[in-house]
Amino acid sequence: MKLSELGEFGLIEVIQKSIAKSRNAQLDSWKQLIVGTGDDAAAWQSNSHIQLATTDTMVQDIHFDLSLITWEELGYKAMAANLSDIAAMGGIPEYALVSLALPGELDVEDIHELTHSMAHLAEEFGVAIVGGNLAAAPNIIITITIIGCAKGKILLRRSTASPGDQIAVTGYLGLSAAGLEILQGKACLHPETSNILRQGHVHPIPRIEEGQILVEHGVNTAIDISDGLIADLDHVCESSKVNARIELERIPVHPAVKANFSNYEQLALRGGEDYELLFTADNATITRVKQVLKCPVTVIGDIREEEARQRITIIDGKGNVIPYKRSGWEHFKNGIL
Amino acid sequence: MKLSELGEFGLIEVIQKSIAKSRNAQLDSWKQLIVGTGDDAAAWQSNSHIQLATTDTMVQDIHFDLSLITWEELGYKAMAANLSDIAAMGGIPEYALVSLALPGELDVEDIHELTHSMAHLAEEFGVAIVGGNLAAAPNIIITITIIGCAKGKILLRRSTASPGDQIAVTGYLGLSAAGLEILQGKACLHPETSNILRQGHVHPIPRIEEGQILVEHGVNTAIDISDGLIADLDHVCESSKVNARIELERIPVHPAVKANFSNYEQLALRGGEDYELLFTADNATITRVKQVLKCPVTVIGDIREEEARQRITIIDGKGNVIPYKRSGWEHFKNGIL
Repeated sequence: MKLSELGEFGLIEVIQKSIAKSRNAQLDSWKQLIVGTGDDAAAWQSNSHIQLATTDTMVQDIHFDLSLITWEELGYKAMAANLSDIAAMGGIPEYALVSLALPGELDVEDIHELTHSMAHLAEEFGVAIVGGNLAAAPNIIITITIIGCAKGKILLRRSTASPGDQIAVTGYLGLSAAGLEILQGKACLHPETSNILRQGHVHPIPRIEEGQILVEHGVNTAIDISDGLIADLDHVCESSKVNARIELERIPVHPAVKANFSNYEQLALRGGEDYELLFTADNATITRVKQVLKCPVTVIGDIREEEARQRITIIDGKGNVIPYKRSGWEHFKNGIL
Repeated sequence: MKLSELGEFGLIEVIQKSIAKSRNAQLDSWKQLIVGTGDDAAAWQSNSHIQLATTDTMVQDIHFDLSLITWEELGYKAMAANLSDIAAMGGIPEYALVSLALPGELDVEDIHELTHSMAHLAEEFGVAIVGGNLAAAPNIIITITIIGCAKGKILLRRSTASPGDQIAVTGYLGLSAAGLEILQGKACLHPETSNILRQGHVHPIPRIEEGQILVEHGVNTAIDISDGLIADLDHVCESSKVNARIELERIPVHPAVKANFSNYEQLALRGGEDYELLFTADNATITRVKQVLKCPVTVIGDIREEEARQRITIIDGKGNVIPYKRSGWEHFKNGIL
């Protein structure tokens, strides 16, 4: 059935059922909820004193292509990208509001799959979907807002990197960008490898637990790698008024990317959407964090005093500076629109 | 200059300047802010235990037509519609996140005007804009999330209307719908009258203070009239599992609407977007509230036991039942998409 046949109020019922299925009465977020969907605003009891809020939008044919990914994957990714922003603050995600702008000719079953996968991932990370909005629109636009809280008094910030800090990243990079190349048919690999890469692109895991561990162990500075390593490190440098030097050979390119893509360095440097955390801290803190985190942690460089020239310097194994362009994705300038 | 020339990061700077201009250091929301725009999430200190959150989307050519309203009016209205949802809970709005999906060919100056008017209205109601998102898209979609808190422990709900309650509305109805008719050239009136109606459509005033006063004086049930009187009263009846009976002649149609539109009853019953509050309470409470509220308060009917037939009955001055259709705006079913 098409949305135009079911109508807004019918669709609201379908979505509320999706959410109800993922409702986990054991979760604090559900326990503390006072008013959920179906009123003018959601309301909940809060215990924490520091509140967090983030919002992110995915636009059809800019952020995703439905000829390449499934509705389940789209729902997952939209929610994961938002959760990742809470991870990058070291916070606890609690509540989500989901706004969907959708063309009337879409199939209700597809939207059910979309919202079901959002609700499923949300539940996995302790998040209750408590509100949102539906509107007809010529193309699909998904905006999710996640509200959460700090675990204690400390947050991970972009603006607190200091000269002398080591720069580290969790996990591996380049997986998502390589996965997109597979989806776009630009590379053809062994099915098992293809699947690893594809999963990296469509099912990135937000580093919620890792973000909280960083905060607990004295890290103050972090960002999630959504725009790409260079672009996101540049955001940290700009906010912190520092420079950074990274060593190309230390960047933890995912083995499946390194083995199969000649441009693996570019995929790792610029790819984005891996949703790993980039963080900075002194040596002792990083050593401590490495012992606690279950995922790989790789030091890739260090923070330096701010200088007038390019904020990030990349060097090769011999210590030579590698020239590069700052460019990353930039809305309005890039893309077809 | 076009957005495609300025780019995403340039536009972020423009918007941050708009927000900075409206930053009022005296406001609690700004005082308690820890992290504003420019990090992965916003963060603030909270004193209240009940948090509120609401989100609303405006889609070009569905919710607004830029050949009829200005960028300033669009920004105002998008923010006002969201504030109104917090008013309908009797809450205090505190923080806003603004997501803009915009075509690259738009003029930067127009977007500046849009965000400036949002920030200006936000500031007027004590709200700090602390985050958001920008993305390129084929048409304009504005999604605002407002986060706030309850003044005490009580919230206005849709689900708490009881048989015996009186049904009351603040202010006048039909102004916004009549204003739209003026904008669309369907009616031509004296410029002064036209302006009153136009202002009702483009500059509705969210009933934030009134919502809080309702809570303080013992009202438990309210909704804001955004979809139209019948549609929104129907939401209350559905949530509360009650019926309602309203008297057509008691509906406070705005005098300028009544004097100039033969279909004034329809404009008041179905028009929507007046953002007045509809609330229910016992007689004594309504009498008390009438004495405190500065705006007009009109009792238009009462809440009855739930019956199987149509939830809302409308009667004329002689007590005769007037037949009507439930229909109001419904996304996907209505409109051009």
